[in-house]
Amino acid sequence: MSLVMSPGLLEHPKVGELFSADVVQRAKETLAKIPGGFGAYSDSRGSLAIRKEVAAFIKQRDGLAVEPNPDHIFLTDGASVGVRSCLNALIRDKRDGVLVPIPQYPLYSASIALYGGSLVPYSLDEKKGWQMDIGGMKGAIAKGQARGVNARALVFINPGNPTGQCLPEANLRELVKFAYHNKIVLMADEVYQENIYQDVTPFVSARKVMKDLGEPYASGVELISFHTVSKGTLGECGMRGGYFEMFNIAQGTVDEIYKVASINLSPNVVGQAMMSLMVNPPAMGTPARAGLEAEKAAILASLRKRAHMMTDGFNSLEGVTCNFTEGAMYSFPQLHLPAKAIAAAKAAGKAPDVFYCLRLVEATGISTVPGSGFGQEEGTFHMRTTILPSEEKMKDVVERLQKFHAAFMKEFK
Amino acid sequence: MSLVMSPGLLEHPKVGELFSADVVQRAKETLAKIPGGFGAYSDSRGSLAIRKEVAAFIKQRDGLAVEPNPDHIFLTDGASVGVRSCLNALIRDKRDGVLVPIPQYPLYSASIALYGGSLVPYSLDEKKGWQMDIGGMKGAIAKGQARGVNARALVFINPGNPTGQCLPEANLRELVKFAYHNKIVLMADEVYQENIYQDVTPFVSARKVMKDLGEPYASGVELISFHTVSKGTLGECGMRGGYFEMFNIAQGTVDEIYKVASINLSPNVVGQAMMSLMVNPPAMGTPARAGLEAEKAAILASLRKRAHMMTDGFNSLEGVTCNFTEGAMYSFPQLHLPAKAIAAAKAAGKAPDVFYCLRLVEATGISTVPGSGFGQEEGTFHMRTTILPSEEKMKDVVERLQKFHAAFMKEFK
Repeated sequence: MSLVMSPGLLEHPKVGELFSADVVQRAKETLAKIPGGFGAYSDSRGSLAIRKEVAAFIKQRDGLAVEPNPDHIFLTDGASVGVRSCLNALIRDKRDGVLVPIPQYPLYSASIALYGGSLVPYSLDEKKGWQMDIGGMKGAIAKGQARGVNARALVFINPGNPTGQCLPEANLRELVKFAYHNKIVLMADEVYQENIYQDVTPFVSARKVMKDLGEPYASGVELISFHTVSKGTLGECGMRGGYFEMFNIAQGTVDEIYKVASINLSPNVVGQAMMSLMVNPPAMGTPARAGLEAEKAAILASLRKRAHMMTDGFNSLEGVTCNFTEGAMYSFPQLHLPAKAIAAAKAAGKAPDVFYCLRLVEATGISTVPGSGFGQEEGTFHMRTTILPSEEKMKDVVERLQKFHAAFMKEFK
Repeated sequence: MSLVMSPGLLEHPKVGELFSADVVQRAKETLAKIPGGFGAYSDSRGSLAIRKEVAAFIKQRDGLAVEPNPDHIFLTDGASVGVRSCLNALIRDKRDGVLVPIPQYPLYSASIALYGGSLVPYSLDEKKGWQMDIGGMKGAIAKGQARGVNARALVFINPGNPTGQCLPEANLRELVKFAYHNKIVLMADEVYQENIYQDVTPFVSARKVMKDLGEPYASGVELISFHTVSKGTLGECGMRGGYFEMFNIAQGTVDEIYKVASINLSPNVVGQAMMSLMVNPPAMGTPARAGLEAEKAAILASLRKRAHMMTDGFNSLEGVTCNFTEGAMYSFPQLHLPAKAIAAAKAAGKAPDVFYCLRLVEATGISTVPGSGFGQEEGTFHMRTTILPSEEKMKDVVERLQKFHAAFMKEFK
């Protein structure tokens, strides 16, 4: 990334003093993927060469027979921009509904509101580890129809944000069939696909589930999948690099989304280069790849440890239950708050979970997000926290949490 | 920019072999402006330290007594994103109108349509070098009102795109007064402020005009100004760095725009760093600054020469008139097409200017944009071309244009 920012360095006689030969070679290859150079606008969809690398990545990840069409892959300034482009294309007015999980990541509710559509909520089943409840989805569509809203699309987040689950393949199969029979566009937010902390439920993409189900689903379900350089083991949020792949989406729709993307000229080129590095890492067998794999493995092993520390910590608290953080970066425990705490919150003019989270940050400095920021079943209270503090800090976080919670319960029980 | 991409290089014992001491120092300072580092999301408004640099730049450029409020300056992924955020905030539904110059840059018409508002066109006066015709604006507002549209904001582009004019200070003064009396928010697209090719009409910002007019205008007109790293002598389009400054905009509105910006988490950090380099160049008196100024002067001198070559070239053509490209990067000549050419275009199912531009690109390879892409007075025909080909190429461009045009006129006259 340093070398592509100043390509003149590649010709510097002493470039080898700071950069190894494989890095110099890769920088040259990356520059060749950006025909206008890093100082120019790229194609509004992003560099074709990098979109081809994304296509190869998807083919390899999902064991596809054919590479996805690179012209149906758009590079974006982070996945959020891609999600918004697609919602913008899907929503005409408030009669157009988008099925969104509850709890959800607020990008969806905010964007649907901005584009003038209607959010159609469906509940994740906390008792089943936050799986999707397909029966509930049918009810959600019916409820939407009763208020004049026609559900056109369904968002799901796998692994989950804020809920941290990995959706089992069987659950995804049900979802694909549901989408097929109800003519619903699937929006697969799969940005945490690399963040997996157990071996029972590995990440499976919606793309692969469709392929494995075969016809009529494989070519009968409209799917848009989102990915990013901001998560996983790369975590380069500041570079703002994302992509979305449109599968079984009509060419006319793709053309319209391209036209709208062109208003902003092009996604930032640095984020595109970062995407290239993510989807096309150094070749297997090279020392660079071995180093990368070792680094990834260490990061994931540590995150797995922290996922256990965090959820075990929550489950050690009186009246708190927490599904294991199977993936993504979050724990989302349920707080069974005493009636006295709920009354105190009401008196303070706060939602009970907001009241709890404010007390927590005031007493300990631990900043969390109340469940009401994501939506939750009526009458239940949650909070979201990340598992990102270092292992050393995590022990302290859990201890402070335990101490605070004991005092809170003593005060309000 | 190379060093901030891999901060570890700063500690490398041989960093001095590739980078001079002042560059190393500047990289350290830039890193300090991005507290979370280049790998993390920044504040959704962009780095505070860099917003302060933008504030200092505006103060110095316009001779303000007080620095603008950095919390009313938002960094964006290019100026276009900023324009869209502000239009989104301004437009509630189709009864909200935005005054847009004709000819205009299509970002405006496209975004207004996307957000469901109404474009209220006002004409630039080609005979007066594309100045704004304030009387015409009043008529435009009245016409909007007649169709139930209330003009809330006015876009102007100075220097002009596609028209290449620099707006005289007197014209801007009239505009500010007009905005004050009609309670119109001004949107000042000033992305080409550094691209000036004559000395009679220097660039003057709307911010400065308001300051110089004094009260009640100085604090009575709502102004949003846009700038970018993509133009000027920097021209780093691929980095996607922009800012907008909100002046006299209610805090509640700023808060809402901040909230909407936060949906996308943060602008890309590399573009923010590029903005820092643009608004806060190396200190006067340093060798780096001397080099920068020399490079800028050479670029601008060459662009000035090319502006003359291009407009002289157009004016040498039979039936073509072209205002001098006073600024920005474009020439926008009027084509007085023969009746036979207009009839041939009609027979081919094309607008006459589209017909001309297609013939031109087919015969010469010179790619231009027909005036109908920007809007033009009914019954007139134009084309836009850039002045960006190198001086050596420009001679050839003009010759090919002359040869093509002579043949075209011979065919259709």
